[in-house]
Amino acid sequence: MTPNAWFDAWFAAHRQRSGFHVTRIPFSRLAGWGFDEGTGTLAHESGRFFSVEGLRVEAGDEIGTWEQPVLVQREIGILGLLVKEFGGVLHFLMQAKLEPGNTGAVRLSPTVQATRSNYTGVHRGRPIPYIGHFVPPRTGRLLVDSLQSERSAWFLRKRNRHMVVEAADAVAEHEDFCWLTLGQLRRLMQRDNTLSMEACSVLSCLPGGPTADDGPARHSLGEVISALSEVKARYEVGQHRMPLRAVESWRRLDDEIARPDGRFFKVIAAEVYADSREILHWTQPLLAPVAGGLSVLLTRRFAGVRHVLLHARVEAGSLDVAEFGPTVQCTPGNYRDLPPGRRPRFLDLVLSAPPERILYDTVQSEEGARFHHAENRYRIIDVGDGLDEVPAEFVWVTAGQVAQLLRHSYYLNMQARTLIAVLHGLA
Amino acid sequence: MTPNAWFDAWFAAHRQRSGFHVTRIPFSRLAGWGFDEGTGTLAHESGRFFSVEGLRVEAGDEIGTWEQPVLVQREIGILGLLVKEFGGVLHFLMQAKLEPGNTGAVRLSPTVQATRSNYTGVHRGRPIPYIGHFVPPRTGRLLVDSLQSERSAWFLRKRNRHMVVEAADAVAEHEDFCWLTLGQLRRLMQRDNTLSMEACSVLSCLPGGPTADDGPARHSLGEVISALSEVKARYEVGQHRMPLRAVESWRRLDDEIARPDGRFFKVIAAEVYADSREILHWTQPLLAPVAGGLSVLLTRRFAGVRHVLLHARVEAGSLDVAEFGPTVQCTPGNYRDLPPGRRPRFLDLVLSAPPERILYDTVQSEEGARFHHAENRYRIIDVGDGLDEVPAEFVWVTAGQVAQLLRHSYYLNMQARTLIAVLHGLA
Repeated sequence: MTPNAWFDAWFAAHRQRSGFHVTRIPFSRLAGWGFDEGTGTLAHESGRFFSVEGLRVEAGDEIGTWEQPVLVQREIGILGLLVKEFGGVLHFLMQAKLEPGNTGAVRLSPTVQATRSNYTGVHRGRPIPYIGHFVPPRTGRLLVDSLQSERSAWFLRKRNRHMVVEAADAVAEHEDFCWLTLGQLRRLMQRDNTLSMEACSVLSCLPGGPTADDGPARHSLGEVISALSEVKARYEVGQHRMPLRAVESWRRLDDEIARPDGRFFKVIAAEVYADSREILHWTQPLLAPVAGGLSVLLTRRFAGVRHVLLHARVEAGSLDVAEFGPTVQCTPGNYRDLPPGRRPRFLDLVLSAPPERILYDTVQSEEGARFHHAENRYRIIDVGDGLDEVPAEFVWVTAGQVAQLLRHSYYLNMQARTLIAVLHGLA
Repeated sequence: MTPNAWFDAWFAAHRQRSGFHVTRIPFSRLAGWGFDEGTGTLAHESGRFFSVEGLRVEAGDEIGTWEQPVLVQREIGILGLLVKEFGGVLHFLMQAKLEPGNTGAVRLSPTVQATRSNYTGVHRGRPIPYIGHFVPPRTGRLLVDSLQSERSAWFLRKRNRHMVVEAADAVAEHEDFCWLTLGQLRRLMQRDNTLSMEACSVLSCLPGGPTADDGPARHSLGEVISALSEVKARYEVGQHRMPLRAVESWRRLDDEIARPDGRFFKVIAAEVYADSREILHWTQPLLAPVAGGLSVLLTRRFAGVRHVLLHARVEAGSLDVAEFGPTVQCTPGNYRDLPPGRRPRFLDLVLSAPPERILYDTVQSEEGARFHHAENRYRIIDVGDGLDEVPAEFVWVTAGQVAQLLRHSYYLNMQARTLIAVLHGLA
């Protein structure tokens, strides 16, 4: 449908399109956004979009107690991929989507990426192309429809609806969209900052594939689920929303909410001009994390069957205490001062892996509508026949078991889902 | 292992055992419990057990916005069933368990029913028999281990860990416990107030059984999950904890927190004397709901395959907006004044069902450690070849699909799980 050379030219043209400028501004210049005098909450006057509030996390002696700003967004957004067979091959309708927070601006994104605010018109923007395929009454065939978590270190209990719909009829063309095969998408996952993580996340939920029933697993699916239940029951995590102005160790300046030591992230304000968004000019807060994040999946074969090492991971904003993340998920800079025993497990192994073990090594950027220049390195590393035994809270899982878990909600976090989509492409 | 006649005598003896008295007292006589002066929260001085707080639920125009008291308990309790084969037949170690809120006091309960407070000793009570089979390091084989929701109309985001463990070695005997087969348990589900709902709930999660792969379903499992995702995305429910003293339409008297119109429930205080509990005398708050609750599952066959009609149901304290409940779940008295069009769907059909259609009709009592005289009528009604088409938010599901969903968390609520355990017994 779309020859690779044609795609490259089309994508480059979108990248080179002018008219997209982002400037940091002081909070006082945000239009429609303001701080609540009592609590310090940063919110939009419509009550929609998202707010920045305070969160106190009590996670017991081992993990600790801390306070932080957190993004709160009640509504459940749609990440929708429209698919259709051409010449007997399934094609995916991908969008070249501009987001203010992304370096290089354009990412190849799902067909529809919209909150209810977007498609019900609170945004007062242009209509969302193809949204009719994803909201009732739908005419297409539903291949995927499940809620999956957002980035839970920054969002409180946020989730998105992951949908894949096979179009029933002819689909109109649109200059910002193009049809690609799964093979083409997998090739593009190898490039830095090309596919959006949202696109990878939706692709990870596709049923079937060569890995869906991949042979004897090291643990039964029941044992895998049990490992997560054990972590959830053990930590008794309490999440308490609190006034942002009272959050310990963070302070609000004219143009950022940050920690004096600079760790974790900042909340900043930005002014955005664009000509390929629903509206042409706006201001909004963005969350800007510390650079250098790392998400790594360790993998090996047991009795010939590909396994991945997942980590049952407590995160500040998880809907239900914990989900499986990649083997390592951290920003090493935040741990610079810690003694080796307190550094994230497997971090040193990951940082010293010999090049021939690294199956995948690409920079991906987090969602550019909320996060500013949030780029992380994603790696998949084969450990050969190592790590036969792993610590509690880590579990070896087959790709087929992951596919079963991804039919349901809140088993794998965003970073793990992204790496799973990549892993399918390596097979 | 345990002849029926022997069981009946043993159970009757436990029921007739004296020394169990519950008296309502004013809140001021609660020992260790008190109201926070600022917020009005009713809590234990240890910070453990549970607290009674205020909750504001914002569920959009259709469902509405309301405030209510709610029980808050962060810790995840264990509902654990120990099983073992005797003579080639699986037996379940059931406990004759006294609870203060139950009429007739004793229910046949899971082997272990304990919060972390219980088994880590905050309760300062006796050790919990058999708890070692359910906490690490376990030696038995894990058959079930998943988190399932508590009653979400009364609890905020509460869930319990449902576990079934097959004992690896010989199991010591205990006078309050006896071994019963699944057949015996299913027979006992037919009796009023005999098996606890907790026992039914754990039994509903058992894998396999004759209905696990029961033939062609009216909808694919993906469509069933999608129906629930649709409801979750549609209502954008907000749950806000708030000061109990500020909750609208409820007022606190010396001995109860209640609504002037008497609807929904009261929070009361009780003094309890017992001689078969971990400790012998204590006081505690209890939630006392309005009498006459009804939970009804409609069922029929499509192309010979048994289906049940589930309702994707928003509840005040749901962890994730909604779960599938029975077809009808309500206390009709709360709807007495409403016009027919606003009464719960299928309620009138259920109340007028001819006797020959009623497959099951039994009174079950809610958990007696938190709820006072909370008895509800549970019914299963066969609709023959009716209800081919059902409204949005209702979906026909096979028993085999339900078994698949129950491997995971938060698909079926407590009332639906109880009825599913019964349905398996009717097959």
